[in-house]
Amino acid sequence: MQNTIDMVHSIQQLAQQQNLDEVLTQIQHLNAADIALILQALDISVQVSLLHMLENKAEVITFYPLEAQIELAQHLPIQDLAEMIEHMHSDDSVDIVKAVSPIIQKQLYTRLSLSKRIQIRALAAYKEESAGAIMSLDFATLPEGFSIQQGLDYLRESASNPATLYEIYIVNAVRQLQGVISLREMVLAPPDALIQSVMTTELIYAYADDDQESVANKLSHYDFIALPIVDREGCLLGIVTYDDAMDVVNEETTEDFLKASAVSTTTKMSMKTAPILLLYQKRVFWLVFLVFGSLLSGLGIAHYEDIIAANLVLVFFLPLLVGSGGNAGSQSATLMVRALATGDVHFRDWFKLLGREILVALCLGGTMAAAVSLLGYFRGDIMVALVLALSMIGIVMMGCLIGMSLPFILQKLKLDPASASAPLVTSICDAAGVLVYLFIASQLLL
Amino acid sequence: MQNTIDMVHSIQQLAQQQNLDEVLTQIQHLNAADIALILQALDISVQVSLLHMLENKAEVITFYPLEAQIELAQHLPIQDLAEMIEHMHSDDSVDIVKAVSPIIQKQLYTRLSLSKRIQIRALAAYKEESAGAIMSLDFATLPEGFSIQQGLDYLRESASNPATLYEIYIVNAVRQLQGVISLREMVLAPPDALIQSVMTTELIYAYADDDQESVANKLSHYDFIALPIVDREGCLLGIVTYDDAMDVVNEETTEDFLKASAVSTTTKMSMKTAPILLLYQKRVFWLVFLVFGSLLSGLGIAHYEDIIAANLVLVFFLPLLVGSGGNAGSQSATLMVRALATGDVHFRDWFKLLGREILVALCLGGTMAAAVSLLGYFRGDIMVALVLALSMIGIVMMGCLIGMSLPFILQKLKLDPASASAPLVTSICDAAGVLVYLFIASQLLL
Repeated sequence: MQNTIDMVHSIQQLAQQQNLDEVLTQIQHLNAADIALILQALDISVQVSLLHMLENKAEVITFYPLEAQIELAQHLPIQDLAEMIEHMHSDDSVDIVKAVSPIIQKQLYTRLSLSKRIQIRALAAYKEESAGAIMSLDFATLPEGFSIQQGLDYLRESASNPATLYEIYIVNAVRQLQGVISLREMVLAPPDALIQSVMTTELIYAYADDDQESVANKLSHYDFIALPIVDREGCLLGIVTYDDAMDVVNEETTEDFLKASAVSTTTKMSMKTAPILLLYQKRVFWLVFLVFGSLLSGLGIAHYEDIIAANLVLVFFLPLLVGSGGNAGSQSATLMVRALATGDVHFRDWFKLLGREILVALCLGGTMAAAVSLLGYFRGDIMVALVLALSMIGIVMMGCLIGMSLPFILQKLKLDPASASAPLVTSICDAAGVLVYLFIASQLLL
Repeated sequence: MQNTIDMVHSIQQLAQQQNLDEVLTQIQHLNAADIALILQALDISVQVSLLHMLENKAEVITFYPLEAQIELAQHLPIQDLAEMIEHMHSDDSVDIVKAVSPIIQKQLYTRLSLSKRIQIRALAAYKEESAGAIMSLDFATLPEGFSIQQGLDYLRESASNPATLYEIYIVNAVRQLQGVISLREMVLAPPDALIQSVMTTELIYAYADDDQESVANKLSHYDFIALPIVDREGCLLGIVTYDDAMDVVNEETTEDFLKASAVSTTTKMSMKTAPILLLYQKRVFWLVFLVFGSLLSGLGIAHYEDIIAANLVLVFFLPLLVGSGGNAGSQSATLMVRALATGDVHFRDWFKLLGREILVALCLGGTMAAAVSLLGYFRGDIMVALVLALSMIGIVMMGCLIGMSLPFILQKLKLDPASASAPLVTSICDAAGVLVYLFIASQLLL
């Protein structure tokens, strides 16, 4: 992989000299994932020429990111594209076919085999983010009643090229799932044993209309390499494999990350290529919403205008105190959001965690109060130092409690706890912090 | 899985009535992952009794989170614990043995087989977060020169119980890795073909001292199910499987999440059980650091004290304007951190992204300026509205540029871009925002 990155430069030079045969010699023995990495660094026309010459082009293109696959599909000769689609896993091919223009789709369909066309149409019908939309149709089944040896012979003769074989599914005459046996179990079992006596009949599966995230969680809960997907009658429709589940987890994690900084997420986008307007749309709602949220801080300040006018030194420390509450609060919120996402804590733990958080906040607030009251003493006097110390402890405590509670409240309201973003927590803590600070100041300084 | 959660309550009742035989009857046919889920909801003494009776106890315990495994290990009769360790995958067993007290370790060693003791000692020697520390020793090898049928027969006779068999490694007499063949390829190939003619010889592997994150990335780059780990002489030492890689990715993602809210991360911790002092330590550094960072904002305010005294209405809008810059900046930072982490953008893209960010920031700033200047007009006058609008555009632009550049700068300094946390970006943007706002105000209002 590292060597591959080093190769990119020399390959680029060869390509510029139009020495494509030499490029082919150098890359064709590499792993398909590395070939894909190298090709993507070249001009699209060079990629098209090289792919035309590569034998394993269908495998190589599956290692492109989806966006790059789609761009490439628009440039490939239709015959090459059809050949690739024909040999790709069904779940990968349907993503490309769905994304290309209707004209290319039409040209493609006339060149694909009947079985591939049926596969693609079937998969394209499932709604986005469902198990059906990410499942693969390339799995192996065996009928009931075979011996291990008969099963192995049958697989050897009939397994179509791209079928995954980690798990083999035993189905009855109407394709209802009866059992699962791993290839490992088949190889290790005595050849004359009946498959039925070895297979697992305690079946774990998901439905095609299940949410993709729940399917990924199920796969990871059981440490499965593949999970069978069935319809409501228990008939086997497809499988979701561990690598697809990993992609789903990555996607959902990115969503959580973006939510954490108040960026709306609905579709995938690349920072390099997404339209400016889309980036604007994804960010503007929360920013404007928070502007109005910050008005609360302003109202707090307006209410205490007199005490500020009389003690302008208070303004000097305003950003510092208010900011500290926001910082402590967004730490708490992130810790809770992550702990909820990984299943470390549940709603019922709220009360217990509240007690712990109060202790942590007290320690944090105390340390920060010591730091800030020293500053206050030098800049103001002993009373200012006292106001700052008390305010800091109060503000940090409140920030922590708001930050840790908000994700739980959101979850209780059936909203995503990850929406307790740093900016949202910061804005709420800001307003609360202004009130705490100026209230304490008005009590002690007037 | 859902049904399992529903089962927990009825099982808890049975356990309270000391009806453990009935509990056993109800759970023993379940998947080990589900048994582990149910057991963890019971008292530790009940868990110990039930595990004693379960045949697949070694498999069940691997589905416990590591912390729970370790707690359980302290309570199990030493004979049960030894039996479990003996039958667990080597990478799982070493984690437990390393964590239990020296007394239990000593008692354990006398009860384990020689081969298991050697395995555990070998794995325990690798340093934390290296490939060696997460690799498994339960893989299958074949000598050179076998035919497919000979190979399958050999595996059937010799494969030890826990060995993973997705990939079989071909080694020479000194255990140097020569080739890889998947079980699938072996089953589908003609039985009399030589393994050497079918196996992959373009080897992809990692070294035992490689960082675990790079190994996980390699596995995911190649979509491998297992990656061989070799020493510097090319001798096969172990394998890292996809599920271990998934755990590593989860761990690193959590680290990034916590960094994003300025929580230091070095060790794993549970929000429910981590000592208060540890939680304090992980959070206090950044909070105090940011207190001093916020002083910059204070200095800005002190510099413009006169203009504030003359126009107290400016203070009303201070949190709002300054907060908006921080919010926009932390959005930009998160988008960049995530794009860098997923490989969507690289350092060389900085300049191009800068141009795009300026456009987005201009649109965002414009929208927010419209909102805030309306408020300014009602609260102050047309000049205040103008100051607010110009300040908002300037502050949002600056926040976005700081937020998007900081992750790149950190990467260039060989620091983790994820350290560009929301609180850090917010503090920098706060100080910059104060200066922009009060500078513009001083130019227009005096």
